Amino acid sequence: MLAAQGFVAGGAACGIKPDGVPDLAIVATADGRVVPAAGVFTTNLACAGPVLVSREHLADGRAAAVVLSSGNANAATGEQGRSDARRMAELTAYAIGAATSDVLVCSTGLIGYFMPMAALETGIPALAANLNGGTAAADAILTTDTVRKEATAAVGATSAVVGGLAKGAAMLSPAMATMLAALTTDVDVEPAVLQAALAGAVAATFNQLLVDGSMSTNDTVVVLASGASGVTIDDRAGVHALTDALTDVCGSLAEQMARDAEGATKLVRLTVRGARSLDDARRAARGVAGSQLVQCSFNGEDPYWGRILSELGASGALFDPERVTISYDGVVACRDGIDADADADALRAIMARGEIEVVCDLDAGTNTASMLFTDLSHAYIDENRGTS
Amino acid sequence: MLAAQGFVAGGAACGIKPDGVPDLAIVATADGRVVPAAGVFTTNLACAGPVLVSREHLADGRAAAVVLSSGNANAATGEQGRSDARRMAELTAYAIGAATSDVLVCSTGLIGYFMPMAALETGIPALAANLNGGTAAADAILTTDTVRKEATAAVGATSAVVGGLAKGAAMLSPAMATMLAALTTDVDVEPAVLQAALAGAVAATFNQLLVDGSMSTNDTVVVLASGASGVTIDDRAGVHALTDALTDVCGSLAEQMARDAEGATKLVRLTVRGARSLDDARRAARGVAGSQLVQCSFNGEDPYWGRILSELGASGALFDPERVTISYDGVVACRDGIDADADADALRAIMARGEIEVVCDLDAGTNTASMLFTDLSHAYIDENRGTS
Repeated sequence: MLAAQGFVAGGAACGIKPDGVPDLAIVATADGRVVPAAGVFTTNLACAGPVLVSREHLADGRAAAVVLSSGNANAATGEQGRSDARRMAELTAYAIGAATSDVLVCSTGLIGYFMPMAALETGIPALAANLNGGTAAADAILTTDTVRKEATAAVGATSAVVGGLAKGAAMLSPAMATMLAALTTDVDVEPAVLQAALAGAVAATFNQLLVDGSMSTNDTVVVLASGASGVTIDDRAGVHALTDALTDVCGSLAEQMARDAEGATKLVRLTVRGARSLDDARRAARGVAGSQLVQCSFNGEDPYWGRILSELGASGALFDPERVTISYDGVVACRDGIDADADADALRAIMARGEIEVVCDLDAGTNTASMLFTDLSHAYIDENRGTS
Repeated sequence: MLAAQGFVAGGAACGIKPDGVPDLAIVATADGRVVPAAGVFTTNLACAGPVLVSREHLADGRAAAVVLSSGNANAATGEQGRSDARRMAELTAYAIGAATSDVLVCSTGLIGYFMPMAALETGIPALAANLNGGTAAADAILTTDTVRKEATAAVGATSAVVGGLAKGAAMLSPAMATMLAALTTDVDVEPAVLQAALAGAVAATFNQLLVDGSMSTNDTVVVLASGASGVTIDDRAGVHALTDALTDVCGSLAEQMARDAEGATKLVRLTVRGARSLDDARRAARGVAGSQLVQCSFNGEDPYWGRILSELGASGALFDPERVTISYDGVVACRDGIDADADADALRAIMARGEIEVVCDLDAGTNTASMLFTDLSHAYIDENRGTS
């Protein structure tokens, strides 16, 4: 997380969660300096207060810090929720010597509860006075996650890097997952370029991940660029290198989320190709990935391609079902829309794997879309039956 | 099922399913006579052979019989599947003394397997020679259903009736559920009027039922009208009475399906009202009903209205989240988009019920949509992990 120069970070338990579990993190420029920043946010109409406040504070494309909390989403909390999110920015700004409007706020957790502001009034200054590192920050934003999620990537062949931390383990859906990610980079870049690069990276990564199809109230990905490496992004090659590095980091974080998805035992890499249009490819991929029935089949290690074909057919994409090919890790189970008489032992061995690649070729065009999804298990239900 | 005059029916085990379980049904006019008929079919692009054949045979708005089978969907079976479905119609037509093009075919079961035609070559003539009643027919079309599904309703104040049988227990989704329904009525009616009345009944019933959001390859609802009651439908009042009777029967069958949904422990009657447009109302209702997270909450008896608000917000409907009210059996849990501080004991008691009514008022207009949905349970996963 702190591979990029020019940043400090830390995490602590401030009392949002019970039992002294870490629940508060700060990522800031080393000197409280305002630097170029960008963000991509949930499109949920019922988005949380912190999302609205962060959008406001990012309007000028600059920020000095991100304050992140877990355990309470500060969503469905109305004007008080927005006021509480602003106060979190203000407390952080005061502690690090920045303006309130230069602090972004991300919260994750239960919906419908007011933030326990007393805990934050003391917790934010205490944490800001003891920024104990990126690992502690990564730990403090987890909710039902079982493992910490961090990633780094070099920006092309330069000395500059992108680092990131994230949380996310369920309610994963395009666009976006129930997830938070805070990225840092030490390149020197204009805010508009940084925003475009981040948007491209998110589209290719977090937006292709689906666990249960729900889009949360709080999804946020933000990035701050310190410029401390001295590497300037000022030409097409530089933009590509930055976008690639952001995509690498976001991709790694998305994969870590999928592997940590609530109760999941399988990770499925789905590609729909041969679609008439990109929209058709995406609809079809999303239809298959989001199907409870398909997810159950993977849970049971059953190569039931008929359900995949049915979801392709129900997706709204246009194609001839009798030209469709469906394969599992390269073994063709369905050809021309009917059973391909595949080797049952080979399919059984593939379905027993933890990661499985499924390719659906619609043979109707040249467009492709990919999704990463997981199986549906008893443990997912257990995790989501109650809020306590 | 046979409450309507002028029909015969029966069911038997012909060997599609193992162990002598009933798997074949015929519903026919008493004398093999061709009568007005109508049908509503899945819009899945990968629809099964029987669906294509039934659509063809209904092109003239007339039919003499329906042959229904369970255990094998005859879907994803290509040209051979269509040929097999045509042969099922031919065998039935021959046995009852009608033309092949006057027989409709409905199959339900596993996708991707060719029909065991040897079993049908002997089974259809044997069943046609021994039409042992509507109850036997209703039993023979069940798949993962645990109970037989039948319903009847009077057509207005006349002596005419509508009867019906159905199967359906999972993959229930608008439009339509994974279900088959065969209806009979003894009114005298033009095919075009019958088709319009059936389409209206299906829109108000089967298309508002969601178990897992999957639309199958085989969904079919058909109706035959014998005219045997002597009641003629020839004016506006008559059309309304017929539509109402069809809606009653389809509604009862849909409710029976929801109660028998795979593994479900809760039946939720959801209404979204106050929507800006009918399309918004439907999107919002569908978004809530189809959410795995919402379904898990009901399984855990958790009145987590925040997830419902989040799904409304993610649905694409336009409204102000801070004007939304959400209630459970009349107890308001969320008002103006925030916690309404409801009596926790009252909510707990409501969530323990087997049937719960949820009303979401968007306060953005005057449009309403309803959905019937169920919770997501371990048993659902167990039912759908494997095909065997």
